Amino acid sequence: MKHKKHHPYKLWQLLIAGLSLLIYSNAFAFDYFQVLPKAPLIPATNPLSPEKINLGKQLFFDKRLSQDLSINCNHCHNLMAGGDDGMPRSKGYKNQQSQRSAPTLWNIGFQTVLYWDGRAPNLEQLIPDHLRDPAIMGVRDLAEIEKRITAIPAYGEAIKKAFPGTKQAVTQSVSMAMASFLRTLLTPNSRFDQFIRGDKSQLTQAEQQGMDLFRTEGCLACHFGVNFAGPAPGPAMTMGDGFYELFPNHPGSQYDSSHDLLSDLGVFQVSGNKADKRLWRVPPLRNIALSAPYFHNGSAKDLDEAIQVMAVAQYRKKLETEQIRKIRLFLLTLTGEIPKITLPKLPGIAGKPFYSEKTMK
Amino acid sequence: MKHKKHHPYKLWQLLIAGLSLLIYSNAFAFDYFQVLPKAPLIPATNPLSPEKINLGKQLFFDKRLSQDLSINCNHCHNLMAGGDDGMPRSKGYKNQQSQRSAPTLWNIGFQTVLYWDGRAPNLEQLIPDHLRDPAIMGVRDLAEIEKRITAIPAYGEAIKKAFPGTKQAVTQSVSMAMASFLRTLLTPNSRFDQFIRGDKSQLTQAEQQGMDLFRTEGCLACHFGVNFAGPAPGPAMTMGDGFYELFPNHPGSQYDSSHDLLSDLGVFQVSGNKADKRLWRVPPLRNIALSAPYFHNGSAKDLDEAIQVMAVAQYRKKLETEQIRKIRLFLLTLTGEIPKITLPKLPGIAGKPFYSEKTMK
Repeated sequence: MKHKKHHPYKLWQLLIAGLSLLIYSNAFAFDYFQVLPKAPLIPATNPLSPEKINLGKQLFFDKRLSQDLSINCNHCHNLMAGGDDGMPRSKGYKNQQSQRSAPTLWNIGFQTVLYWDGRAPNLEQLIPDHLRDPAIMGVRDLAEIEKRITAIPAYGEAIKKAFPGTKQAVTQSVSMAMASFLRTLLTPNSRFDQFIRGDKSQLTQAEQQGMDLFRTEGCLACHFGVNFAGPAPGPAMTMGDGFYELFPNHPGSQYDSSHDLLSDLGVFQVSGNKADKRLWRVPPLRNIALSAPYFHNGSAKDLDEAIQVMAVAQYRKKLETEQIRKIRLFLLTLTGEIPKITLPKLPGIAGKPFYSEKTMK
Repeated sequence: MKHKKHHPYKLWQLLIAGLSLLIYSNAFAFDYFQVLPKAPLIPATNPLSPEKINLGKQLFFDKRLSQDLSINCNHCHNLMAGGDDGMPRSKGYKNQQSQRSAPTLWNIGFQTVLYWDGRAPNLEQLIPDHLRDPAIMGVRDLAEIEKRITAIPAYGEAIKKAFPGTKQAVTQSVSMAMASFLRTLLTPNSRFDQFIRGDKSQLTQAEQQGMDLFRTEGCLACHFGVNFAGPAPGPAMTMGDGFYELFPNHPGSQYDSSHDLLSDLGVFQVSGNKADKRLWRVPPLRNIALSAPYFHNGSAKDLDEAIQVMAVAQYRKKLETEQIRKIRLFLLTLTGEIPKITLPKLPGIAGKPFYSEKTMK
């Protein structure tokens, strides 16, 4: 397996990081398999607070953050389901089809790579980018959205409370609040986690065999770490120092065309750097059962197909039906507990329309 | 359309009904002002059960009930806000603008008239109608949606549990479950309700003066009953025996054109009967502060404008600014407590796409 890492580390950095991890945190260690930690690393520049989380939740569900009030974040990242939209490629503003599939938001705080190509270094910067994307929220001018939000007294108040004494752009507060909310989206206690914590009754024989195959057939080479997506943010890997892999690692199979694996070149689309061709984030596998279809373009309709294609594209390996089945059974054990979330109450202006017609066109 | 008159009752019916009401139920009596009852009348043909309510809630939030998976019921009836969409006229399937404004769903169980023109006799029949409407959920063939739903094992199970031993079309179960959920959407304990229950400190002097004006200036003539929309379903009024009023009662004002009050003729659009021209349901006023803009076509941008237009259109009366202000202040006291609702978990098929591509086009 060719590991083509985007941001390689110096040996001494890796050694120190590895040692600290071994000593301080079993949860973050590069064990084969790791339990979902209680919380992701929270950036010192944006500590969590209930005020930010609540505001972030309101904004997440508020369609007023899209240009024409038609969609909210939950439209493509459905927290009533897999944290995605279940579509091959997402349909955002004006029902425009995005180039890629919406990734899940569950456990997003453990991701080091955001977007399929890592083009945002952290959640705080991803959010304004999402707002402005013509195929996502379609916002033409962030200043308009800022006006819309601050025209609602309860939002003005909530921003003040979440960021007391801070002078910053409304978009900055919005982004920090939403990033805070996103970092709370955790799905603990999958059967896999319970198994790793010691309750061996949680996994059947076939699931355990699938777990072994997952490791021995090479899936684990890239899908390791707490989120099965490479290292989580921590001492060894900060956000933005993304972990990428080649996909397909071995072009030339029938799947290049059947699954359209070569038209979108991943990180290269952003960097223009030849070395980045076919470089992609490693998608997390927790709750993978909830987010079919698969791949950046949604071209694999179900898990069996995804496993089959991956084995060929990455290892030139044709897995047997029984191996695929067992790996699939293992992957199904990665579904965690979806937390209870109450519907937020979206504030308005009593007796007045909640938007200005001027900002709607 | 069978209801051509405002008040389609015989005198003796009204007398008996009135007497029973006085004797049996203060909550349903035609008092000037009434507290929101604990629950609406539940039809004997569809008693409430937790299983139906839970299933109904899931379906309410499930986009798979729209033809192209783009919208759920909450899209136009936002339970995170006023139970409507805050738009002048709603945008449903494929972003098509509906002819009319989406009414609130809060306290919908107290309505006798559904749709602005009463064209559905009850919630159970309204739902398939909503699904099929090309400007609402856009479903071409209910059988396709039934297949989509029953393809999801957890929905199959939930339907069986909610309707044990019953043989009926899936759409019928879906409609009964959703109607059950809708009947639980209550907003009790508005300041108005607390005032009526005896806590006179809840309303300011100006709000109480507004309450008096609301009665003496004639608003109450139509906006009476627990939902300020005429009689609630009960002994005197069953669903389908709708309560309608003329609007504008006095055509000929400047508002006919400025607010486009004559192009849509209400009940007449459904019945084709001349006597039904300009006949409309009386919109409920609870939580009215949350659902600007106003009227069937959303042509009144805020409450002051709505009050002003209504006085002229119904009574040829020009209210003073101060009177309008006080009536508005009273109306703002009708905002109840929005209940806590947890996000439902929408079931899927583990590791498989949640829709069949065939049913998507």
